[in-house]
Amino acid sequence: MPHRAPGAPGHKANYLSGKVIKYYRPRGSAEIRHLIDNGFQAFNAGRLSEACQIYTEKMLTPENDTTVGLTIAGALTPAGLGGCIIEMMERGLVDFVISTGANLYHDLHYALNFSLHRGSPFLDDVELYEEGIIRIYDVLFPATVLLETDSYIRDFLVRSKIEGAMSTSEFHYRLGLDLLERNPGCEEYSVVAQAARAGVPIYTSSPGDSSIGMNIAYHELMNGGTLMIDPNKDVNEVCAIILAAKKNGCIILGGGSPKNFYLQGQPTLWEVYGIPKGGNDYFIQFTTDQVVWGGLSGATPAEAVSWGKVNPGGLPDTVVTYVDSTIGFPLFCEYAVGATHNRRPRKELVHKRDAMISDLLRQAKAAGDEKPITSEPPEVDRHR
Amino acid sequence: MPHRAPGAPGHKANYLSGKVIKYYRPRGSAEIRHLIDNGFQAFNAGRLSEACQIYTEKMLTPENDTTVGLTIAGALTPAGLGGCIIEMMERGLVDFVISTGANLYHDLHYALNFSLHRGSPFLDDVELYEEGIIRIYDVLFPATVLLETDSYIRDFLVRSKIEGAMSTSEFHYRLGLDLLERNPGCEEYSVVAQAARAGVPIYTSSPGDSSIGMNIAYHELMNGGTLMIDPNKDVNEVCAIILAAKKNGCIILGGGSPKNFYLQGQPTLWEVYGIPKGGNDYFIQFTTDQVVWGGLSGATPAEAVSWGKVNPGGLPDTVVTYVDSTIGFPLFCEYAVGATHNRRPRKELVHKRDAMISDLLRQAKAAGDEKPITSEPPEVDRHR
Amino acid sequence: MPHRAPGAPGHKANYLSGKVIKYYRPRGSAEIRHLIDNGFQAFNAGRLSEACQIYTEKMLTPENDTTVGLTIAGALTPAGLGGCIIEMMERGLVDFVISTGANLYHDLHYALNFSLHRGSPFLDDVELYEEGIIRIYDVLFPATVLLETDSYIRDFLVRSKIEGAMSTSEFHYRLGLDLLERNPGCEEYSVVAQAARAGVPIYTSSPGDSSIGMNIAYHELMNGGTLMIDPNKDVNEVCAIILAAKKNGCIILGGGSPKNFYLQGQPTLWEVYGIPKGGNDYFIQFTTDQVVWGGLSGATPAEAVSWGKVNPGGLPDTVVTYVDSTIGFPLFCEYAVGATHNRRPRKELVHKRDAMISDLLRQAKAAGDEKPITSEPPEVDRHR
Amino acid sequence: MPHRAPGAPGHKANYLSGKVIKYYRPRGSAEIRHLIDNGFQAFNAGRLSEACQIYTEKMLTPENDTTVGLTIAGALTPAGLGGCIIEMMERGLVDFVISTGANLYHDLHYALNFSLHRGSPFLDDVELYEEGIIRIYDVLFPATVLLETDSYIRDFLVRSKIEGAMSTSEFHYRLGLDLLERNPGCEEYSVVAQAARAGVPIYTSSPGDSSIGMNIAYHELMNGGTLMIDPNKDVNEVCAIILAAKKNGCIILGGGSPKNFYLQGQPTLWEVYGIPKGGNDYFIQFTTDQVVWGGLSGATPAEAVSWGKVNPGGLPDTVVTYVDSTIGFPLFCEYAVGATHNRRPRKELVHKRDAMISDLLRQAKAAGDEKPITSEPPEVDRHR
Repeated sequence: MPHRAPGAPGHKANYLSGKVIKYYRPRGSAEIRHLIDNGFQAFNAGRLSEACQIYTEKMLTPENDTTVGLTIAGALTPAGLGGCIIEMMERGLVDFVISTGANLYHDLHYALNFSLHRGSPFLDDVELYEEGIIRIYDVLFPATVLLETDSYIRDFLVRSKIEGAMSTSEFHYRLGLDLLERNPGCEEYSVVAQAARAGVPIYTSSPGDSSIGMNIAYHELMNGGTLMIDPNKDVNEVCAIILAAKKNGCIILGGGSPKNFYLQGQPTLWEVYGIPKGGNDYFIQFTTDQVVWGGLSGATPAEAVSWGKVNPGGLPDTVVTYVDSTIGFPLFCEYAVGATHNRRPRKELVHKRDAMISDLLRQAKAAGDEKPITSEPPEVDRHR
Repeated sequence: MPHRAPGAPGHKANYLSGKVIKYYRPRGSAEIRHLIDNGFQAFNAGRLSEACQIYTEKMLTPENDTTVGLTIAGALTPAGLGGCIIEMMERGLVDFVISTGANLYHDLHYALNFSLHRGSPFLDDVELYEEGIIRIYDVLFPATVLLETDSYIRDFLVRSKIEGAMSTSEFHYRLGLDLLERNPGCEEYSVVAQAARAGVPIYTSSPGDSSIGMNIAYHELMNGGTLMIDPNKDVNEVCAIILAAKKNGCIILGGGSPKNFYLQGQPTLWEVYGIPKGGNDYFIQFTTDQVVWGGLSGATPAEAVSWGKVNPGGLPDTVVTYVDSTIGFPLFCEYAVGATHNRRPRKELVHKRDAMISDLLRQAKAAGDEKPITSEPPEVDRHR
Repeated sequence: MPHRAPGAPGHKANYLSGKVIKYYRPRGSAEIRHLIDNGFQAFNAGRLSEACQIYTEKMLTPENDTTVGLTIAGALTPAGLGGCIIEMMERGLVDFVISTGANLYHDLHYALNFSLHRGSPFLDDVELYEEGIIRIYDVLFPATVLLETDSYIRDFLVRSKIEGAMSTSEFHYRLGLDLLERNPGCEEYSVVAQAARAGVPIYTSSPGDSSIGMNIAYHELMNGGTLMIDPNKDVNEVCAIILAAKKNGCIILGGGSPKNFYLQGQPTLWEVYGIPKGGNDYFIQFTTDQVVWGGLSGATPAEAVSWGKVNPGGLPDTVVTYVDSTIGFPLFCEYAVGATHNRRPRKELVHKRDAMISDLLRQAKAAGDEKPITSEPPEVDRHR
Repeated sequence: MPHRAPGAPGHKANYLSGKVIKYYRPRGSAEIRHLIDNGFQAFNAGRLSEACQIYTEKMLTPENDTTVGLTIAGALTPAGLGGCIIEMMERGLVDFVISTGANLYHDLHYALNFSLHRGSPFLDDVELYEEGIIRIYDVLFPATVLLETDSYIRDFLVRSKIEGAMSTSEFHYRLGLDLLERNPGCEEYSVVAQAARAGVPIYTSSPGDSSIGMNIAYHELMNGGTLMIDPNKDVNEVCAIILAAKKNGCIILGGGSPKNFYLQGQPTLWEVYGIPKGGNDYFIQFTTDQVVWGGLSGATPAEAVSWGKVNPGGLPDTVVTYVDSTIGFPLFCEYAVGATHNRRPRKELVHKRDAMISDLLRQAKAAGDEKPITSEPPEVDRHR
């Protein structure tokens, strides 16, 4: 078998004949709200209905002023879900985002006006490889879209003279500003661009783990670039955002490392910084993973209580809906956009990161001056 | 509800009355091999049998000299699976590891001789929280184990004067050396320690995403430490390992970001560095995620072909076994330890990273001098 | 532990304070159709969209005149999905039904005007047992609802003097007529009643496997009743319906024995009766089971091809949507009710069963007169 | 597309080149017991270990004298699991069986010495159809095996002059005796034959729902046969077995209608017959279905408590292991066969059915003479 890259010339026409995937924007449909309120009564339909109620009647009410974190795992931007995220950020309904790198990388295709197509999950992948077609489950596009997007990223890295260690939120913010500048209007078609416009920080828990990270690594090795993602800054910023919030609540799409990254904010506060700030007040998850497989993606809000990740008093305000996010999230967003509190003043946290970090530092130092939590000889049992 | 940390004093006796979890070491049982060969004939039992055969009869044969990457997601060290990983590394059957941070963090409990206990997934988490008991599905231990382990990490960070930007493999290597020095013999009880001894590099795809990362972040904020994980180095090292291999093969436990991080090695080569090195020759996964949910954890080897992640000619040598790793992996390791090629010279890749990176740089430069892959005007279609 | 029935007196007020579950009726919402057409583009949302198109643009077009079988597994009537089924039968969009007995039994609660309530899946079942509350996942109702419904069934068995061996379709038809007579208007609240009114035969693949079957068994043992469900009649009637159809198509909710019972119709024709009638032309399934677990519920249309259950040429017109039926089916019904061909002349198959059976007999005899399929010495290999 | 049966002549050699599937017999391996006791410590491995302990240390101890019901769903005999079931019945470790018809039908292939082959789930089903190869997930065999097995069944129906209404246990018993007579020694290769020899009644919850039922239906329609499965008899026999037991316990493989049929025994007693006999004392399930999908297959022992299906005091003695039965059940059987109480006097319930039914009738009549449970005016709320 010849060792080579996909992307060889070929007659791709057939594979790319499916409809172009667009970023669907939720409109607040009253009929969808009617269905959710009256037809979604039990089982996961019931959970989806509960999630809509917790979000619109508790998290988004002005008196609670909840800081809403959205975590994204699974290939949602390739599936066209970016429009939901854009709408929510634009309306101030999501305050910060933790995403896999892949979702942000594939969002750039939309920003750069490349097309992804509806396809099928049942194709012959060896043939796709021969034809230079990339497949994400049932989404298809030519390998050149990858190469062009990579080219844009590497060009941005060189052009912007971006240097030094920084958080992913800073990197994504600068990338978003560049998109806004070079592709005016693209904030309607790009999560990264809209986030920059709306002041929503975007974090990536596994920064090397996508084509964005791959291209930054290239830049360091080949160009001697000094740009480096500093995960410490991400940990501390997310921690500081949670500490600064009046109430904390999350919308978790999928699970994976973004879920873990979000949820570890509270343990970081008490376990590492010694700051007695309790866990999440609200917890909404859409997933198809299961608690019995024992992984974090499927772990329930209840399990998170023992870690101090979820406020023990808050279990009634937590819900897991077992449904593919591509079905559940658009329904949820339609409901939210049609709700009473469907627009909030944007927190624009991206501009408040330094202040929040300072406050974290101040509180951590104050906590450290008190009798430390581990001063007593530990009564820990041993296994050998 | 009072906002505070778990860990308050209480009568924990009951919750921790379950057996202490030990690192079980596979012994190469002939009876287990008999069952796998003769009783595991179809469905996922058949797949498990195939995985055992691909590993022992193809990947491990001397003529193939496969570089074996092991990726770890899901709470496997808390469940006592570390002994399997230790055995495999010690025997040279695994050449490098990509793990979630949590598995490495919880491995430290074993290294430091703290006890985790068998429990139940059906406990009252509010009560556990009150009692200061941490629950990982059905594994229980006191919150003090976390605090003591954190304390060890922070002490190591200060004591070792470890500074600057580094890969996770370097950080874990140094941590492992410290464990070996301070807890002689702990390489039998700790994956991190054994990896350091056996020269097996351990990467973490989401470096801020565990208590290890949380404590490094603390060190930066509170102590002004300059230690920083540089994901670029991880990307390039893994890429260089794959490039240097005669054949590549993986054992993927679970999925998640470690799976993605491993599999992106090949696309990094062709897509970013322009080096025409093909995909994986062998692919073994144990997972309970499903292809139809569309995420990377459940994506099949076939889908990876279109990305150049799996060699198109290699599909017969790929297998996914749908089973909890806590059941499938010990059976698989018993089989391997009892096989003909159950010991190989260790590659000790941790000591060859610089040389491999140099080679990556050299080949990437050579590739860049050729006609670049994107020189022709791209024929990419647009969605607006 | 005292051995006794649940149902002891107690203060049930709390558990039954949730909203009463109603049979939601789909209205053909244009806004839901817009979302499905434009927002459900990929992954399972894309599959749901495809299912809607196959149903409304192929199965329901007059020229295809597809005989539509609906199979029902999972507790859908307790969850309030009966209204969707009623609407579909009333509009002639579903021609026959194969259901678990439980769905029909719990449908009787609605017919008899008893209330089921929205609840939670996280209740203390020992306490529920003490309180005499029955739980179906998150649906709650008092045990007296069971006892009253049983009482109605036993009363019907005695009162109607129903005797002898019969198909489940006949039994359900007579039960439905009784409901219509005694509870005028209940066809709006009961699948069994509406089916009798609309001439839709309802089959149960496991006739002893519900409280209906339990009460018939009681009637035989205690009253010496001769009523007996004859599964042979069910097998032959379903077979005859499929044989009589111009085209066959199914909507499978869940899977389980109803799915198997439906799909075995074609193999019965060729394998047992020797009639060369091919498999299904259209196949739509909503399920959360997975192909990799190897059971029939998760088996794909492709696997059914090798059995002659699905027409080999029809694979493009098959789709499996991996979603909880409580979410997927109401969306699907909204789409169908809003479509062009949203009403068809009802086939009223319940009144044509005898004629169709006669035709099956005639064709089977004709087929038997030809050279039998197994006349040649079989070339079957042996395992011992 | 031509409408015809699969089975056309062709060159099947390739598809059937995989190893012949044999009925593997567990041997009580000490090494497997060591792994389960010491290596299977947490998550589903821990659950599997618990299941082994509940079975061998509680259910099988002489003082408990548990009546053990085994329910079988999923294609386990095609996968070669029949040997485990044979071993358990022969040792008196399983007292009665409830199975899908498909498992019993495919068991006949082994009894009749036809071969099934190991294959792959990734074949082209249209090609298989053309070649006349039947696929059950990854098990392959020629369509002639179906035709020959059908031919045997129809021949048996004619030859044996079996007539009238009977329970499935009676039908399977007579079928087993016929196999024993015509294929001496086949009790080592056939569950149906061994069950007849060992006096283990086998029930099928959906009697029309397999090729056995299809052929009985043929016999009625074409030959005017009067053989008819009477589900009433099955309901009452299973009910009587449970009533007669000192303690009740089950091993549930998969779920589906066999699980429901087993579990409804207790509610039949209290809800229908008014006999205050409590629920199961022990409950072991191997499944990959999930509670959150809301179906009966995935329903937990806890949910069954509210229905009186599981003894409220017995929850500690219930366990669900989430694993493919093809992996979990052989491990479980190896453990049991190697345990202290690995052989019990066989209950031979097939010969005691009449006596047990008489006792059920007697107790039901006695219960009916007491103040009936529904005499008070029901306080049931209404939804309209």
